[in-house]
Amino acid sequence: MTARAAPPEPPEPPDRPTAVCVMEPAAAALVLPDDVRARLSTLVRLDPAPPGADLPAALAEAEILVSGWGCPRLTAEVLAGAPRLRAVMHAAGTVKPLVSEALWERGIVVSSAADANAGPVASCTVALITLAARRTLTMAAGYADGWPDFADRTGADGLTVGIVGASRIGRRVIAELRRSDAGFRLLLSDPYVTDEEARRLGVERVDLADLCRRSAVVSVHAPLLPGTTGLLDARMLALIPDGGALVNTARGAIVDTEALTAECATGRLEAYLDVTSPEPLPPGHPLLSLPNVLVTPHTAGAQGSEVRRLGQYAVAEVARWLAGEPLLGEVTREALPRLA
Amino acid sequence: MTARAAPPEPPEPPDRPTAVCVMEPAAAALVLPDDVRARLSTLVRLDPAPPGADLPAALAEAEILVSGWGCPRLTAEVLAGAPRLRAVMHAAGTVKPLVSEALWERGIVVSSAADANAGPVASCTVALITLAARRTLTMAAGYADGWPDFADRTGADGLTVGIVGASRIGRRVIAELRRSDAGFRLLLSDPYVTDEEARRLGVERVDLADLCRRSAVVSVHAPLLPGTTGLLDARMLALIPDGGALVNTARGAIVDTEALTAECATGRLEAYLDVTSPEPLPPGHPLLSLPNVLVTPHTAGAQGSEVRRLGQYAVAEVARWLAGEPLLGEVTREALPRLA
Repeated sequence: MTARAAPPEPPEPPDRPTAVCVMEPAAAALVLPDDVRARLSTLVRLDPAPPGADLPAALAEAEILVSGWGCPRLTAEVLAGAPRLRAVMHAAGTVKPLVSEALWERGIVVSSAADANAGPVASCTVALITLAARRTLTMAAGYADGWPDFADRTGADGLTVGIVGASRIGRRVIAELRRSDAGFRLLLSDPYVTDEEARRLGVERVDLADLCRRSAVVSVHAPLLPGTTGLLDARMLALIPDGGALVNTARGAIVDTEALTAECATGRLEAYLDVTSPEPLPPGHPLLSLPNVLVTPHTAGAQGSEVRRLGQYAVAEVARWLAGEPLLGEVTREALPRLA
Repeated sequence: MTARAAPPEPPEPPDRPTAVCVMEPAAAALVLPDDVRARLSTLVRLDPAPPGADLPAALAEAEILVSGWGCPRLTAEVLAGAPRLRAVMHAAGTVKPLVSEALWERGIVVSSAADANAGPVASCTVALITLAARRTLTMAAGYADGWPDFADRTGADGLTVGIVGASRIGRRVIAELRRSDAGFRLLLSDPYVTDEEARRLGVERVDLADLCRRSAVVSVHAPLLPGTTGLLDARMLALIPDGGALVNTARGAIVDTEALTAECATGRLEAYLDVTSPEPLPPGHPLLSLPNVLVTPHTAGAQGSEVRRLGQYAVAEVARWLAGEPLLGEVTREALPRLA
């Protein structure tokens, strides 16, 4: 064989847009590990500086911003320094701390990776509901007092579980619970879901009072909005039958903390809380020492090895946007008030 | 229309065998509720007396015994009073307290409803593994000491989970964990599973030491046998990496309780225990107060509303046996030593 000249390098596509990543370095290490960043580099001309939470000089050239935890709000002033910016792919959950009126007015496309967060939260929630269905905390707390009788043991079969809010996580939880062979009866309270959609989801749509009255386990999946703050108040919690449980992996302020504390202090209800209000709870708060309450420090969301899902999602959104495909996580000004 | 004579009652099939139920009345109320008993009555001529744990006079006529918790062992003496007995459908888990050499010698068919128990145990176990994957007990215990950093948070993605024993419950747990989008790496230690079968199950077969060395969460699903007593001893537990967890919903004596207590007392390992040795643990046992240990009083198995599954299973076995179909839960003398 004769030696041949190496083929010429393919020319860089002239329309490859520039992109920059802005987020806390500690978050970036998990959200955009080398392989995810390398994939992003195949799609865009990426600012080679390691991501930081300060707005970089490169923002002046960037058409795409991959944002994350710690990215400052994109105010009119910030946007004035980013004249070419056309899309923000947020490699984290809610975009509420990020967006501004100026951003919407510029017509900049916004996408959130909240969907990528939903898998871990839903798995955790289903695990907590599974334990709540057998009154696990109460059983564990009563261990020293003697072995529970047949009659004091609760099984999951046919149990009624109330889902407050058909959010993306609420829907995943519904789907997982429907897969179970326990034959859960599922109630849903959500003002935006029609009876027909409820039928498709496999749930019975009821109002919140009815849901509380009939559910052995109530799981919160609503966004925190003015209309949902304190939604599970003393009156609603009082409707949950004796021996019931509240599971909250959504937002603490949807539940009245004092009222819940009172219900748990009597032993009437159990609580499985990944979120609280305030968050964190102050040291010595009674919820932290009640034996029938589990409080975890907001650990249900993507964390550790799961955080790369957020970066992968944002990079996939970049690819879809470049290909002119619909974004899966697009957030509009109109939809934002109903989102978490 | 003219009045017509009612059709004659269909004659009772001449070969409908007689059956009797023997179990604790408290268990019978849950295992054989009216509808399940009614279904059984369509298949056999059922002793109409309510089930009790004493061997009834009807045993003299019975061809089928539906047994449950509290049924006495079927010794040679008992069997002498049951000359027509051909099948025992045990509406509970293990048949070990029930069977005898005399039973096997008579060629009496034995079936266990242990499979019906597997669903609830597997769901509970998957819930505990899901929580262990994020070090939930440690996170909850550390709540008062401050909010955990990014770096201290563990996600489930790509986590290695070690399954000790491909029992029916172990296999269900494997199948559920494979369904998760977390991409768990699954190791299996089981002397009876070939590499080919392990591939079919979607796990890597390793020896127990290797499993402990590589797993963040170790879940016990072996039967309690002379060869598995103390299987997870101090040496094996010491191999589990720092921050790991042990989940046991099988039998307490498979784990060395003292060694586990020592590992949990240092905070090195978490434990999620539905079974212990001794069971119950004596009041004041350190496992009952360690914040990184959850001990529940053997609540993972079918209980409450789930217990009817055992009766339904036993009745379905009666139907299969009468139809000459293979039993799904048949237990043979040969298989018994390897069963829980």
